[in-house]
Amino acid sequence: MKTLIKGGTVVNATGTATADVLIDGETIAAVLAPGSTLLGFDIERNVDQVVDATGKYVIPGGIDAHTHMQMPFGGTEASDTFETGTRAAAHGGTTSIIDFVVQYAGENILDQYNLWQGKAAGQCAVDYGFHQILSDVQDSSLTAMDELINEGVTSFKLFMAYKGVFLSDDGQIVKAMQRASDNGSLIMMHAENGSVIDLLVKQHLERGETTPYYHGVSRPWQAEEEATHRAIMLANLTGAPLYIVHVSAKQAVEQIAAARDNGQNVFAETCPQYLYLSLEDQLGASSPEWGDFEGAKWVCSTPLRSKHEGHQHHMWQGLRTNDLQVISTDHCPFCMKGQKDMGLADFSKIPNGIGSVEHRMDLIYQGVVMGEISLPRWVELTSTTPARMFGIYGKKGVIQPGADGDVVIYDPNGHTSIGVGKTHHMNMDYSAWEGYEIDGHVDTVFSRGRMIVDDDSYLGRKGDGAYFKRGLSQYLI
Amino acid sequence: MKTLIKGGTVVNATGTATADVLIDGETIAAVLAPGSTLLGFDIERNVDQVVDATGKYVIPGGIDAHTHMQMPFGGTEASDTFETGTRAAAHGGTTSIIDFVVQYAGENILDQYNLWQGKAAGQCAVDYGFHQILSDVQDSSLTAMDELINEGVTSFKLFMAYKGVFLSDDGQIVKAMQRASDNGSLIMMHAENGSVIDLLVKQHLERGETTPYYHGVSRPWQAEEEATHRAIMLANLTGAPLYIVHVSAKQAVEQIAAARDNGQNVFAETCPQYLYLSLEDQLGASSPEWGDFEGAKWVCSTPLRSKHEGHQHHMWQGLRTNDLQVISTDHCPFCMKGQKDMGLADFSKIPNGIGSVEHRMDLIYQGVVMGEISLPRWVELTSTTPARMFGIYGKKGVIQPGADGDVVIYDPNGHTSIGVGKTHHMNMDYSAWEGYEIDGHVDTVFSRGRMIVDDDSYLGRKGDGAYFKRGLSQYLI
Amino acid sequence: MKTLIKGGTVVNATGTATADVLIDGETIAAVLAPGSTLLGFDIERNVDQVVDATGKYVIPGGIDAHTHMQMPFGGTEASDTFETGTRAAAHGGTTSIIDFVVQYAGENILDQYNLWQGKAAGQCAVDYGFHQILSDVQDSSLTAMDELINEGVTSFKLFMAYKGVFLSDDGQIVKAMQRASDNGSLIMMHAENGSVIDLLVKQHLERGETTPYYHGVSRPWQAEEEATHRAIMLANLTGAPLYIVHVSAKQAVEQIAAARDNGQNVFAETCPQYLYLSLEDQLGASSPEWGDFEGAKWVCSTPLRSKHEGHQHHMWQGLRTNDLQVISTDHCPFCMKGQKDMGLADFSKIPNGIGSVEHRMDLIYQGVVMGEISLPRWVELTSTTPARMFGIYGKKGVIQPGADGDVVIYDPNGHTSIGVGKTHHMNMDYSAWEGYEIDGHVDTVFSRGRMIVDDDSYLGRKGDGAYFKRGLSQYLI
Amino acid sequence: MKTLIKGGTVVNATGTATADVLIDGETIAAVLAPGSTLLGFDIERNVDQVVDATGKYVIPGGIDAHTHMQMPFGGTEASDTFETGTRAAAHGGTTSIIDFVVQYAGENILDQYNLWQGKAAGQCAVDYGFHQILSDVQDSSLTAMDELINEGVTSFKLFMAYKGVFLSDDGQIVKAMQRASDNGSLIMMHAENGSVIDLLVKQHLERGETTPYYHGVSRPWQAEEEATHRAIMLANLTGAPLYIVHVSAKQAVEQIAAARDNGQNVFAETCPQYLYLSLEDQLGASSPEWGDFEGAKWVCSTPLRSKHEGHQHHMWQGLRTNDLQVISTDHCPFCMKGQKDMGLADFSKIPNGIGSVEHRMDLIYQGVVMGEISLPRWVELTSTTPARMFGIYGKKGVIQPGADGDVVIYDPNGHTSIGVGKTHHMNMDYSAWEGYEIDGHVDTVFSRGRMIVDDDSYLGRKGDGAYFKRGLSQYLI
Repeated sequence: MKTLIKGGTVVNATGTATADVLIDGETIAAVLAPGSTLLGFDIERNVDQVVDATGKYVIPGGIDAHTHMQMPFGGTEASDTFETGTRAAAHGGTTSIIDFVVQYAGENILDQYNLWQGKAAGQCAVDYGFHQILSDVQDSSLTAMDELINEGVTSFKLFMAYKGVFLSDDGQIVKAMQRASDNGSLIMMHAENGSVIDLLVKQHLERGETTPYYHGVSRPWQAEEEATHRAIMLANLTGAPLYIVHVSAKQAVEQIAAARDNGQNVFAETCPQYLYLSLEDQLGASSPEWGDFEGAKWVCSTPLRSKHEGHQHHMWQGLRTNDLQVISTDHCPFCMKGQKDMGLADFSKIPNGIGSVEHRMDLIYQGVVMGEISLPRWVELTSTTPARMFGIYGKKGVIQPGADGDVVIYDPNGHTSIGVGKTHHMNMDYSAWEGYEIDGHVDTVFSRGRMIVDDDSYLGRKGDGAYFKRGLSQYLI
Repeated sequence: MKTLIKGGTVVNATGTATADVLIDGETIAAVLAPGSTLLGFDIERNVDQVVDATGKYVIPGGIDAHTHMQMPFGGTEASDTFETGTRAAAHGGTTSIIDFVVQYAGENILDQYNLWQGKAAGQCAVDYGFHQILSDVQDSSLTAMDELINEGVTSFKLFMAYKGVFLSDDGQIVKAMQRASDNGSLIMMHAENGSVIDLLVKQHLERGETTPYYHGVSRPWQAEEEATHRAIMLANLTGAPLYIVHVSAKQAVEQIAAARDNGQNVFAETCPQYLYLSLEDQLGASSPEWGDFEGAKWVCSTPLRSKHEGHQHHMWQGLRTNDLQVISTDHCPFCMKGQKDMGLADFSKIPNGIGSVEHRMDLIYQGVVMGEISLPRWVELTSTTPARMFGIYGKKGVIQPGADGDVVIYDPNGHTSIGVGKTHHMNMDYSAWEGYEIDGHVDTVFSRGRMIVDDDSYLGRKGDGAYFKRGLSQYLI
Repeated sequence: MKTLIKGGTVVNATGTATADVLIDGETIAAVLAPGSTLLGFDIERNVDQVVDATGKYVIPGGIDAHTHMQMPFGGTEASDTFETGTRAAAHGGTTSIIDFVVQYAGENILDQYNLWQGKAAGQCAVDYGFHQILSDVQDSSLTAMDELINEGVTSFKLFMAYKGVFLSDDGQIVKAMQRASDNGSLIMMHAENGSVIDLLVKQHLERGETTPYYHGVSRPWQAEEEATHRAIMLANLTGAPLYIVHVSAKQAVEQIAAARDNGQNVFAETCPQYLYLSLEDQLGASSPEWGDFEGAKWVCSTPLRSKHEGHQHHMWQGLRTNDLQVISTDHCPFCMKGQKDMGLADFSKIPNGIGSVEHRMDLIYQGVVMGEISLPRWVELTSTTPARMFGIYGKKGVIQPGADGDVVIYDPNGHTSIGVGKTHHMNMDYSAWEGYEIDGHVDTVFSRGRMIVDDDSYLGRKGDGAYFKRGLSQYLI
Repeated sequence: MKTLIKGGTVVNATGTATADVLIDGETIAAVLAPGSTLLGFDIERNVDQVVDATGKYVIPGGIDAHTHMQMPFGGTEASDTFETGTRAAAHGGTTSIIDFVVQYAGENILDQYNLWQGKAAGQCAVDYGFHQILSDVQDSSLTAMDELINEGVTSFKLFMAYKGVFLSDDGQIVKAMQRASDNGSLIMMHAENGSVIDLLVKQHLERGETTPYYHGVSRPWQAEEEATHRAIMLANLTGAPLYIVHVSAKQAVEQIAAARDNGQNVFAETCPQYLYLSLEDQLGASSPEWGDFEGAKWVCSTPLRSKHEGHQHHMWQGLRTNDLQVISTDHCPFCMKGQKDMGLADFSKIPNGIGSVEHRMDLIYQGVVMGEISLPRWVELTSTTPARMFGIYGKKGVIQPGADGDVVIYDPNGHTSIGVGKTHHMNMDYSAWEGYEIDGHVDTVFSRGRMIVDDDSYLGRKGDGAYFKRGLSQYLI
């Protein structure tokens, strides 16, 4: 299949170009000055399809570097399978995800890796890769890290919270970091002080404070700031590069900025929820259907932060100053009925997670409309930098010859209404983003040259998506 | 003229691609997957020339955003004319310069602008633009700023030093910044405390400390740090974007980093001399020919800094952390005989300036070899960001369709020996970089589609270079 | 005259003691365990008077290190003479002032010093010393600095504002600092960027913004922060100790804190007005009598700051963290009628100054009541540290044998209502503190052993106060 | 017993006074102007003894707020008993110690408190108090905290290192801090990341790196900086005041300074060993007797730091800037033979500790001689601030009426040679300070009015020292 996307404005991370894009098979064959001819050769006549992108943006497909499809957690499982989750991603202009292979303490990493490969195989609508979670850092895990790099898994996530489930103690973290420093892989960190949080949770519950609001209150910014600093200092000790996931506290951003100014290889992502949503409005919400359990819809960790403290504003600033480099979703959806409602009487039993994989490109584009970030920065944050950070740039994250034909045509004159019964394709019985209106629209989505979404219609098939091996982070100098 | 550059590795700011580049006339027509055919169409047969770039880097031509060709200063004039200076630039892979229209106190800005356009017209080997210097900030200068923006001059340079020559007082700076805040232009700042420096110079001379070494000693880092902070705070007050030129002190970088972390639109450049050269080794040098006046070769302002204080190391770090975004040369050459030697008895009479326009791309490439920066960062610092910062991105600073055919083929297996009688094309009787060896080589240089340098041979003609109007900075969000 | 103050709580800078204080002649002879006898010797019978301080605080007399009695300014003169001002000080528990010898550009420093000695001689109710203002820094001024140190003038004040009146340029400042670095004296700095302020004043007036409110608006925090940083950096360059006067902006405190953390000898004072009063409430006030010129009552420089920006809160914090070490008044009173009203049509013509010399001890004691500072810190900020900072500790600033009998008995169960017709003894036709209520009262004041105030009655005479020679700052390590 | 100390220079924290000091019984009865008479009453004739302090300093007795007499640790016990340790303290001018009641995990706090009271009762040469160690933070420990405050134990020490021995996890720390925030007590923290250190120790031993030098290498500054930040953030969360013990890393000081600038109640001590000694010179030392085990003499935690990194210089600076407020010793002596030599084959088996209780006043006085700190600062750091910090000011830490007669006469013209066989009274078979020469000498020491040391002769008796109940910290505002 040969496709010419003509007349659009190609947006890359450093700026725009008025150019046509030719996809030949799975790959971008050329980026051309507009006009459909080259040295007299009529391109338009020699392709299978021509897509008119006049007045629209032609961007590299979104890369969501943080998703948890069908993740087992707290006795249930994230409600999106690799199939439903990646299809929703496709609808939203995201053509690559990097999901997490879960290892709980005691489990064998390579076994888990194979298990997860099996879960995803033949299921996905878009291409996918894996990070590996390390919870206990067994000696065998260290050697497995090297093997996994050969498998294209070049980043390893550790947790400073969730004791008995995911938590690694500081000595274990240092062991993993020492290995990463040697083999060039990237350490990802869930940076919250679990020991403190566990205590506060217990204290709130003992006082009868059981509603979702107390989920947020029991995970104060100090717990995030502290763990962020600690992770940075352990990375400093070992020389390992570090990537902090789902940053939500402005004080954590300040720690990250200080480390970066100091020349340390520290990186960080935030998520749409930390840009738009707040402790008071969401976790403290009430509804006729759910009463003050309504807030459960937004129970995620790190939690939504107080708007009075200005975290949301600071996250946007961090995106501008490049103290935050990536926007992921931490997509980990659970339904209210049968899942979130496990915590009706006890917020600590609510499965943690929000579903946003479908809406990330839209929600961040709205930041362009609002004047928070520039158009190229939108592409950089959602596609180019994730690609560089996680070792897939060149194939992904850029419109250039040789890259995979992962291309999204985005219409700045379109409109998107988010909500169940509207544009909702995630397997959730509610939307965390109900009622959000976006001044733009994902028109057409190509995945490796195949048009898989056209004007809200899904044209692809289960299993279209292929596993990609990732190289080492291309972002480190 | 239609040219195909084939087989090379195209380097843009975010990464590399194995791709062919087709230039049709003055413009890049396409970037193509390698192979010389497109949909069966044989490109190679349909172009005028094919250049084999196998094993080499294909990069956007260098942009030197800070040069002073034939600038009148201290009773003499910079020794490179627009002709000789831009030809040397071409040899070194720099295909665009942005020079400075000089206004001394009392002069009329628009008159000066026209004068400078006249000086450059028909003389240049490569394309050129102008910044405008404002020394006194007359009321008429403020309205002239708006007019100059229409002429494509969108950045205005002020000086906090050189009293009676260039210096604007803080009230004048604020007036210019207020206007820049309104009209979207960029304020560039020479940030040194002239009042303090004038005193120290006088005191050194009174003590008989007259050699070039005291040029550096009389311009201590505190004078740069202070002025940098002051400029930032005045910009904070007015909301104007700010660009600090030729940063050399690590403490100034810290001020810049703090402002940027705080979300202020503050930018900065450094120059090759501040990365490699030092107060002790250069300003304090001695030679049989010149004795301890040898150091005059490196008298520039801001001055070379002490290596014991670690400024050079910190500049490289600032380039990595993006606290410094651009590398320019501040090219302002003077010959030792008849020019620099005006200061034989008094360092303050030495014309200030170093010539580097020819060697910037090489010297910074050597930073890639040394592991200080990455290959894409080299292109970003020397071409892409200057283009975005100064409003010419799209035409310059990137290899993409529609861009000017300003392309350099750089050979990482080549070698360049810098020095008079070797690769020296600048109109200077010495080289500030004598003896530097570069593990790379500028092979071929195209300017708007014309090959103007091929393997050290200059193929162009005087007047090839055209004036480019610049838009507002594309770097601001 | 021998006086025993018995039964009180002696408060020094580090804590309290239940102790009696014996004053013999002009000097404290002993501090004794309570009981009025020593080794069987009945002290009470052997003194001339016994003052019962049971339930009250016995503190070293207040030291106001920043006053401007009868200072010529803007065509008028501060309304308190040395006689009226020091009598008001006495009423308020302040037994020492350090006033400023004024030198305007062109004047001779030693002439001015002698002139000021003449103004004060035989006039004062309490002891006094002098700082010397340097505006232009003539070569003769540098040698005069050394001579003045012998006269007991060991601190020299420079201005970064008031061009053509007081302002020294940065080179002049460095010259004075170099000398201070050599002779051990202290540089005091009015840190506001006068060049910027002059421009903003002019622009406001041109826009018809003439009311007192615009006095504050035209002196933004950036102007103070910038000058504070600049002064610190010039002090860093020269090695001179630095004391910033009347700090009002939180950002200036941050600069001071950073320099102190870095080990630089930087000190600072704030004043009661910056702790309690605000731009909005005072400078923007309106009254039946004065309309929107009411705000003129609080026109001083640095100006009152916006309460929305939280400066006042930050000043209290700075006093706790010791980033601010001294509280002075910058007492410089002008009457509304005939003085302040010179600026009815133009805020820039309003004489700058607030009168507080009488109320400082009360207003800061109220900070103890409010829980902002501790009781010993009250004494430290208002008496002990000023004494150490300005070289009079031992004689002043402490209750210990050998110290001058400058002692205040302060009643925490008393009450003070501030306002004209109430406790007002300053020569002003209004009070900047009208309506303030203090939960404490100055009961009795001794100056060198003489009781000069007893329960609001003034018992002293004009000329009681003597000039004190000061040593070098005892605060520097 | 009535004693008149005459003719000396009394040094308090804010400055000096030429004054006589009268001690009547156990208490200072008066501080008097020199001359031995008061209102004609001849004091000298009415006292039992007169001590001439002419030319000498009269200072409040030293307070060592951090000692570990006969502490059980690692299978042995600190070699100084309460008897020998306090006698050595007395020789060195220290008249109060605050020792630590040890609680290991599982033990009952109140039982331990009673045990320690028993150990000290009737043994001590000088007065003493206790801090309480909390290792596991049992619920019963929280209520015991309140009871201990009534017993005069108002500070509680936690450890972030020594897992399985002392370490509290972060949740436990928060629990203790919450209680401290409620009851006004002070949390003391051993701030080192034990988890990281345990790993590094294991790794060094596995590599055969067993000498004392690796004790220092396995406790890198990052482990201290990290834990310091963490403790500060947990204190921020809970509102508890925090006191960091034995700070040795400059980066830890920076964390403390930042918290203090921010208005948080964070305090810290350093010890003489961190001011004078280094990783390279001591831990890496070799001797004929001990070979490279010589370094065991200086194995303590936090460890001695690298001199190349400049920590020692920074500690002195921190003492000047008041980012460090107290100097204690962490006196915890072990003999080389039979104790330290337990670690001959494994540095981790070396009992941790250095003995300095005898030399603290001398060693810090030498800092005055060297110009590092001022004379009053010496008294403040070693006596006045410890007294205020730990709630005994008024009785201790100051020369004033009503204070205990704990007075030291220090001779600046004397000399002290430190070393075994010279001035050594501690129960150790070596001195960590062998060969140090001090330009001053402890002449005479009074403890509650009794002369217990006179010119190196011990005049007191076992059991002279009494337990003092402490109030809450008087340093907090």
